[in-house]
Amino acid sequence: MARSVEAIAVGTELLLGQIANTNGQYLAQVLAEHGALHYHQSTVGDNRGRLVDTLRQALGRCDMVVTIGGLGPTQDDLTKEAVALVFGRRIVVDEPSWERIEARFRGRGRPTPNNRRQAEIPEGALAVPNAHGTAPGVLLEAEYLAPGASQAVPRVVVCLPGPPNEFRPMAAGFLADYLERWAAGPDGVRTVLQSRSLRIAGMGESQVEHELRDLIDAAENPTIATYAKPGEVEVRLTARAVSPVAATGLLQPVEAAVRGRLGPWIYGVDGDALGGAVVRELAQRGMTLAVAESCTGGLLSERLTEAPGASAAFLLGAVTYANAAKGAVLGVPDGLLADHGAVSEAVARAMAEGVRRRAGASLGVGVTGIAGPEGGSAEKPVGTVFVALAAAEGTWCRRLSLGGDRAVIRSRASQDALVSIRRYMLSGPSAFEG
Amino acid sequence: MARSVEAIAVGTELLLGQIANTNGQYLAQVLAEHGALHYHQSTVGDNRGRLVDTLRQALGRCDMVVTIGGLGPTQDDLTKEAVALVFGRRIVVDEPSWERIEARFRGRGRPTPNNRRQAEIPEGALAVPNAHGTAPGVLLEAEYLAPGASQAVPRVVVCLPGPPNEFRPMAAGFLADYLERWAAGPDGVRTVLQSRSLRIAGMGESQVEHELRDLIDAAENPTIATYAKPGEVEVRLTARAVSPVAATGLLQPVEAAVRGRLGPWIYGVDGDALGGAVVRELAQRGMTLAVAESCTGGLLSERLTEAPGASAAFLLGAVTYANAAKGAVLGVPDGLLADHGAVSEAVARAMAEGVRRRAGASLGVGVTGIAGPEGGSAEKPVGTVFVALAAAEGTWCRRLSLGGDRAVIRSRASQDALVSIRRYMLSGPSAFEG
Repeated sequence: MARSVEAIAVGTELLLGQIANTNGQYLAQVLAEHGALHYHQSTVGDNRGRLVDTLRQALGRCDMVVTIGGLGPTQDDLTKEAVALVFGRRIVVDEPSWERIEARFRGRGRPTPNNRRQAEIPEGALAVPNAHGTAPGVLLEAEYLAPGASQAVPRVVVCLPGPPNEFRPMAAGFLADYLERWAAGPDGVRTVLQSRSLRIAGMGESQVEHELRDLIDAAENPTIATYAKPGEVEVRLTARAVSPVAATGLLQPVEAAVRGRLGPWIYGVDGDALGGAVVRELAQRGMTLAVAESCTGGLLSERLTEAPGASAAFLLGAVTYANAAKGAVLGVPDGLLADHGAVSEAVARAMAEGVRRRAGASLGVGVTGIAGPEGGSAEKPVGTVFVALAAAEGTWCRRLSLGGDRAVIRSRASQDALVSIRRYMLSGPSAFEG
Repeated sequence: MARSVEAIAVGTELLLGQIANTNGQYLAQVLAEHGALHYHQSTVGDNRGRLVDTLRQALGRCDMVVTIGGLGPTQDDLTKEAVALVFGRRIVVDEPSWERIEARFRGRGRPTPNNRRQAEIPEGALAVPNAHGTAPGVLLEAEYLAPGASQAVPRVVVCLPGPPNEFRPMAAGFLADYLERWAAGPDGVRTVLQSRSLRIAGMGESQVEHELRDLIDAAENPTIATYAKPGEVEVRLTARAVSPVAATGLLQPVEAAVRGRLGPWIYGVDGDALGGAVVRELAQRGMTLAVAESCTGGLLSERLTEAPGASAAFLLGAVTYANAAKGAVLGVPDGLLADHGAVSEAVARAMAEGVRRRAGASLGVGVTGIAGPEGGSAEKPVGTVFVALAAAEGTWCRRLSLGGDRAVIRSRASQDALVSIRRYMLSGPSAFEG
């Protein structure tokens, strides 16, 4: 049975929202990679009583507690004191740590008496050197007697510093090495957790869940879960096994089964972005793309060029914000703009055709709409967006009614354009209009 | 005595480190601004038993629990079920919420039976409309009887959805309004913490600190702190007072003093973005802008059009990725590209002049560079970027050597272009070259 670890982030600045707890996510990744179970994470301020309570609560339900932060030189930094109190230990100065601190300051001022606090550790603990800062970490392996309990239980406490440039190397170095030996537990059986996310664009979450219902219900290891992301769905497979190789072996047939249901609607895995996937799919087909954007303001081009190698298929993005630019760059006739307005099916089509012609691309896309908050009307409210696609065999256009604020409308419009290009490649123009 | 709030983020993906708990930070800021005490935050996975335990523990030590996430349509989404269980309530369908969900789907597919789960709430709770997603939030004001306790205590539970684009508006809207009445507690006494961030572009952190040194040292309430952000500096003023009005009264004279020192280098406050500020400043001067981008791939245009009203000054963005597009749209001569390469001062200048001419703008900007990871050489390594600015009186160019990966290089190049346009407006072309 794998052992469990609970993380406690310490710092009032976290509870005031002045900094984000990025260390918590990083630690969670290290724990998952090294096969430790991780059921709770908590944040507590620089307060002795609450910190002691939070430590006791964590020690009551897991095998190891990792604290993050509260190792600094000020009176606010209470983590080691609280750990000592919970285990009934004295605080002692670790002389090697103090020598390291003095050496660190040599040639650039001198340590203050406060810095001597940083060399203190609970008696019987081990100081863990910190290559990037003054405060050493702490490792304490000890018997923990809960208040009112009759029998002590073995526990491990690891205290790491809060600044991310100090925390990360110690989590990825010292802590990961320790977990490598420890996480398996006394029977030597360790389980690692490995995930693989399949990314889907063009199909909604409930539709995806419907397609996979029986697979999800039958899944035990790996588990299958769906997550809705803006304009996308993620299907995450998570396997637990004794080794990364064994976990991969469990994931593969389930991934194949999911791919059998969802086919090409899966555009990528894990951190893949849709823009890069569209460019890759275009390049594989020997196709090129040019886009003309109005309301998305460059976001569509930005997403298409985010991944390396975009030049294999992406030729030109024209952010034609002014009507005159739509004429000068894309050849959209003034009359068309006057008759239909810049936000219209006719102009979207002319933009798609114009940019395709200007760049000499196989496909042209035109996006025009009202991202708001101003500019809406009864006939064309904020969120009205036209997405047109021009190819050799014709031009098609969709009208969207998008909700959300300006940023959301721009994001969804660019998402729809990317999904539309994929639909055209996968199923031809009829799917595009659906 | 102010009332206390505890946050519980729900989701196994958080404990696996697959996503960061950015909502936790945002919530902490809302709580601080509205005078609620915030002593604990915790994270728990999609597990019924642990979620129930975590809710009970939080309800035992604070007045309000805010849950984040677990309101989706799938079997994994257990938050409302766990709240109902802890309070001994049934789950009922909220018909107005179901109608809203059906209306949301109208015209774009149909809701599945799973979506009906999203309209369920604990009996006696209030559904809170969600303008940006399917799942309503929940407000439950109820007596809580802890296991083994003889007397119930009044508690509030608020459940909000996890996707940040849904969570944030509900936290800043519904929850903030509720806290406004509730957080002070029965005796009506509370202290609010209010911050104001002044955003500076074009001046480094040590320079900013030097200009403000005596103000920072003398500051007690509000405090003054400087933070370096990528390509920017933030000066944060934080006041503590009995009411938002009193806090604002403390902040105003200090803000005026800081503005007296830094003047126009402050481009905005709080969430203001640099792109929007540049467009506003151009429009105030009656100037217009067109940009030609290569390595930034649309990011510069996207940042300029992010804020409403961009059309007042932004005419055209040309994302000329292919060399042929640089010729066809901007009139960059083939010979120049052949002699100097696409990443060169000569081509950056020709791009800036070409896009200015094509759009008929007062200013033209050209950005060309190597964002990597491929394409670098000994003479022009990855991170080499040329930023050129063309105006009626001439054209200027800067060569940058940027560090970081592809995304960082693109971001820094776009930041430098925006800062360059401001410098030109504030101090003329000599500053631009500095």
